[in-house]
Amino acid sequence: MKFAKLTLIVAALAALTSCGSKETLEQNQPVAFSQVKITDNFWQPRLKTHAEVTLQACLNQCEFETGRVDNFAVAAGMQEGSFRGVFYDDSDLYKALEGASYSLMNNPKAEVEARVDSIIEKIAGAQQEDGYLNTFYTLGEYDKRWTDMNMHEMYCGGHLIEAAIAYYNATGKDKLLNVARKFADHMYDMWGTGDNHWVPGHEEIELALVKLYRITGEKKYLNFAHRLLEERGQGRGTWDAWNHSVLNRDYYQDNVPVKDLESIHGHSVRAMYLFTGMADYSSAANDTTYLAALDRLWDDVVLTRMYITGGIGSSASNEGFTEPYDLPNESAYCETCASVGMVMWNQRMNMFKGDARYADVVERSMYNGALAGVSISGDRFFYVNPLYSAGKHHRRAWYGTACCPSQISRFLPSIGGYVYAQSENAIWVNLFVGSQSEIEVGKQTVALDMQTNYPWEGATLLTVTPEKDGEQFAIRFRLPEWCRSYTLTVNGEAYEAANDRGYLVVDRVWNAGDKVAYNMDMPVEVVKADDRVKANVGRRAIQRGPLVYCIEEVDNKKFDKVELTPETVYSTQFEADLLGGVQTITAQNGKQTIKFIPYYAWDNREAGKMEVWVKYNE
Amino acid sequence: MKFAKLTLIVAALAALTSCGSKETLEQNQPVAFSQVKITDNFWQPRLKTHAEVTLQACLNQCEFETGRVDNFAVAAGMQEGSFRGVFYDDSDLYKALEGASYSLMNNPKAEVEARVDSIIEKIAGAQQEDGYLNTFYTLGEYDKRWTDMNMHEMYCGGHLIEAAIAYYNATGKDKLLNVARKFADHMYDMWGTGDNHWVPGHEEIELALVKLYRITGEKKYLNFAHRLLEERGQGRGTWDAWNHSVLNRDYYQDNVPVKDLESIHGHSVRAMYLFTGMADYSSAANDTTYLAALDRLWDDVVLTRMYITGGIGSSASNEGFTEPYDLPNESAYCETCASVGMVMWNQRMNMFKGDARYADVVERSMYNGALAGVSISGDRFFYVNPLYSAGKHHRRAWYGTACCPSQISRFLPSIGGYVYAQSENAIWVNLFVGSQSEIEVGKQTVALDMQTNYPWEGATLLTVTPEKDGEQFAIRFRLPEWCRSYTLTVNGEAYEAANDRGYLVVDRVWNAGDKVAYNMDMPVEVVKADDRVKANVGRRAIQRGPLVYCIEEVDNKKFDKVELTPETVYSTQFEADLLGGVQTITAQNGKQTIKFIPYYAWDNREAGKMEVWVKYNE
Repeated sequence: MKFAKLTLIVAALAALTSCGSKETLEQNQPVAFSQVKITDNFWQPRLKTHAEVTLQACLNQCEFETGRVDNFAVAAGMQEGSFRGVFYDDSDLYKALEGASYSLMNNPKAEVEARVDSIIEKIAGAQQEDGYLNTFYTLGEYDKRWTDMNMHEMYCGGHLIEAAIAYYNATGKDKLLNVARKFADHMYDMWGTGDNHWVPGHEEIELALVKLYRITGEKKYLNFAHRLLEERGQGRGTWDAWNHSVLNRDYYQDNVPVKDLESIHGHSVRAMYLFTGMADYSSAANDTTYLAALDRLWDDVVLTRMYITGGIGSSASNEGFTEPYDLPNESAYCETCASVGMVMWNQRMNMFKGDARYADVVERSMYNGALAGVSISGDRFFYVNPLYSAGKHHRRAWYGTACCPSQISRFLPSIGGYVYAQSENAIWVNLFVGSQSEIEVGKQTVALDMQTNYPWEGATLLTVTPEKDGEQFAIRFRLPEWCRSYTLTVNGEAYEAANDRGYLVVDRVWNAGDKVAYNMDMPVEVVKADDRVKANVGRRAIQRGPLVYCIEEVDNKKFDKVELTPETVYSTQFEADLLGGVQTITAQNGKQTIKFIPYYAWDNREAGKMEVWVKYNE
Repeated sequence: MKFAKLTLIVAALAALTSCGSKETLEQNQPVAFSQVKITDNFWQPRLKTHAEVTLQACLNQCEFETGRVDNFAVAAGMQEGSFRGVFYDDSDLYKALEGASYSLMNNPKAEVEARVDSIIEKIAGAQQEDGYLNTFYTLGEYDKRWTDMNMHEMYCGGHLIEAAIAYYNATGKDKLLNVARKFADHMYDMWGTGDNHWVPGHEEIELALVKLYRITGEKKYLNFAHRLLEERGQGRGTWDAWNHSVLNRDYYQDNVPVKDLESIHGHSVRAMYLFTGMADYSSAANDTTYLAALDRLWDDVVLTRMYITGGIGSSASNEGFTEPYDLPNESAYCETCASVGMVMWNQRMNMFKGDARYADVVERSMYNGALAGVSISGDRFFYVNPLYSAGKHHRRAWYGTACCPSQISRFLPSIGGYVYAQSENAIWVNLFVGSQSEIEVGKQTVALDMQTNYPWEGATLLTVTPEKDGEQFAIRFRLPEWCRSYTLTVNGEAYEAANDRGYLVVDRVWNAGDKVAYNMDMPVEVVKADDRVKANVGRRAIQRGPLVYCIEEVDNKKFDKVELTPETVYSTQFEADLLGGVQTITAQNGKQTIKFIPYYAWDNREAGKMEVWVKYNE
């Protein structure tokens, strides 16, 4: 008897089906990255590179190369000059400051703090009496402010708020926070109540206002976020103020009221920020109105629009979406910011659903689509992340539209915040990152030491040390979509953990030094796309654990002849000297030897072709 | 986008396709089990149980319970009595002695040797002047000897030869060997030349004669083996001497000349011994005549007739074969002897093909179909090994036809002989068994220390110590069919091993203490049968590494409701106190928790239902 193929049954992606909305919000809480000290060999070196290279590169671009800081200084009357750049450039400086603040939380550095303080002086100086703050209008046609939904005034304001909160959390200094509040108050006064209506063309302000509500306790910011969400789809967008003939309401997600959204449209980063804001509002207000829409949107995005890298947005023309299953590889847009947006939105969904499938997307987007956005060296960035390259697509030191470098700059130092979550009686392990953490559960603090060589190996060891012994609580370990089988022991004894919404629940009385060994089998997987994805018919992708792999011409001289077959066998090897240390995969096909590297690490060597979905000869 | 399922591409069973016959014989040599000292936690305890329990149980049955030894003593005139039992019972004693001899090689024991010596006295005494030796005829109708092909005279003779060689190798004592040679000479004189023709109804003598040729150097035994093979399919079988109305030539593989065999028919154990004898003759004589037939037969058996357990024979009525893909589960015959036969035949195929797919079958049949033949306690045996049981099928202490207990008794202590093979410039690693070995390669002896927790884990560490440093040779590691990805390092450095016919070739200069770490990823696999196997439509089997798993009612009270789905997730745990220590698999399906144990370990606890191919709800 021939068994044909061992059919692989995966909890994995097959499990990514909607289970409908819920009427109550569970409201797990994220565990801030400041509580998670990363110690592993994968992320820790990246955080170091971020602090030493990426952050400096972004600040230098803003301060010395592109005039982004100068714009504030000029608006503040602190120096001569005129506006340089694009109307949304203020946001990049804010995001760089947000990244600097996060980095300061991880690694306090006096010179970085001094540098940020001097920049804050200029930002504060540029703020208008009434609170308005946007150097493009202040240094230009000031009377045109608040006339065009697509000029990103609220988008920049949102990023100002996020930066200000980050810097306040990092240093306790409230100067920037006061600036942000004053601008928020200005916006609220203009558009927060009554008959003056505003639809932000590029969302972001909504999630920022929820953050501001959370740190200040001022309910008006939450209400304002809600109002701005509710303004959409009412025909109120001033979207024809500019002659954006190619644009339409779909592009801004302004076509229907947000609670009625059925599918994702338009610009992908805007959509991600909108959905994140909707989730944040829902959670903060304990309001379930948007949940059904978020469920529908999640199904639409994740089941029909997401690349295997966790990237989204298949079209450059609108930086966004086309049709379901239209997922071209070479012309994929997959903006780095959109992958980070997927991380943000899915983390929020995970918080109020307590379902691991959202954390699966967090991991997929983080380790692939987002991480590819920055070079191993930390100073070059992708804006667009295709899944095939003919050899001409390379990272750059900066972009005219620099949202992606600054996004990476604020995202990287915050990744510790995605590792855990907490709820009343449980700690949730969402990602596997070697780290030391302290997390509140019940009425005490629990110290967690996670040791792992993830993502290269699937073995993790969690040492649990509660303040006092003998208390019962649960630790819920995510069972990743990619993992089909695992072993879990507590203090060396097999533990039969129930699987609740993708989490293995270890609910017991804990004592200091208890150890949970959770070993996820991590073989090489050969992934077939949904048959409706035309670009991938007759192709397969290689994945191992959370990492999607690709082939590069530098490793595969006969690139165009590469072909996998059912008989191909795969070996893995850790190459410490390659690309910062990576587990490579060698596929052997008779006489053909094919080398795969992690997708995130591509385009860090000699230029050449790259491909994720490789020809497959059945 | 939904990835539907991660499609698993397996070198595995999909690779089990024929590659046609070859014109030259490669003739790798097996490495005798006496060169392989097993030290692991899986087989070593079984060898101990074999020596202390199984072997004693078989000898006791032969000597004290069933009269098998008495028959010889009576025939020798050493005691009064008459024949007891069935006409082929002599063979069981021979197989028990063969097992005792193997056990003596592993663990010399004076009392066992003395016991065997006393039995040999009786056997020798029973031999007739002309060399004939068969207690059924000697104590019965002696003039009817050599009149009926189906009365197993040569079959018993073959087992006598095997036992005699084994005991000679174990002790250097040649008394039994001389008895065996004298009987072989008698058979040769009767049927070895000229116009007297004989077709052995139950094959076995052929492979035994090749063994006898190898140990004596007497070419006439090889020629006799060849003649007996060539006698088949010529219409010469005396198959109607008894009124076996239900039998036909197919049943004895006497329908066509063996070189013309296209597919397997009839009694499965007979077929296995025939094919093994054909392979042995081909190898010893360097004669390629039978190879095309063996290739065809292998494809027929392995691709269309083999159960996932490596068992063969789907019908009890002929103890053998029906139609391709007719593989019922409850009425499966899968005689233990036939699984051992698969091990033997496939080892021979592996020797002259140097192709891992044969060793894949060796492993599958050994760890599943054959190993299930004996209880964990070592004193109870299966004759028939179904893949479903309604709860009434249990091992017994002995059988009227006791081929299977005695088969197990000789097979278990020999399993070290399947671990390695040797060729002029290579050592072949076929199985993964913790052991210490010394193997000739080139002009020197190489010491090998293999450490592994196989079959529970896929990690192996081989320490290589050649007599002298600096010589080049290859160590070829089998890449098992079930293994889709692996890591291989030499002294901690990644080694890119070419894959030649399923072996990873590490060809280098070796120095004392060199270490090869070969880690095979071993996740739980969900196996789908070929769609043509009607019994398994809508079902799946669970396999991990080489082990097929099953469910038992004792672990699964809602046995009849057990169902797997694509969302099922699998955890594994080593349970040291269960069934001699087994890695169990827990499948979780929403609220249903299903426990799997290795198939070989079933029916060692409370009686109840058992199933390998479990319902699967797509």
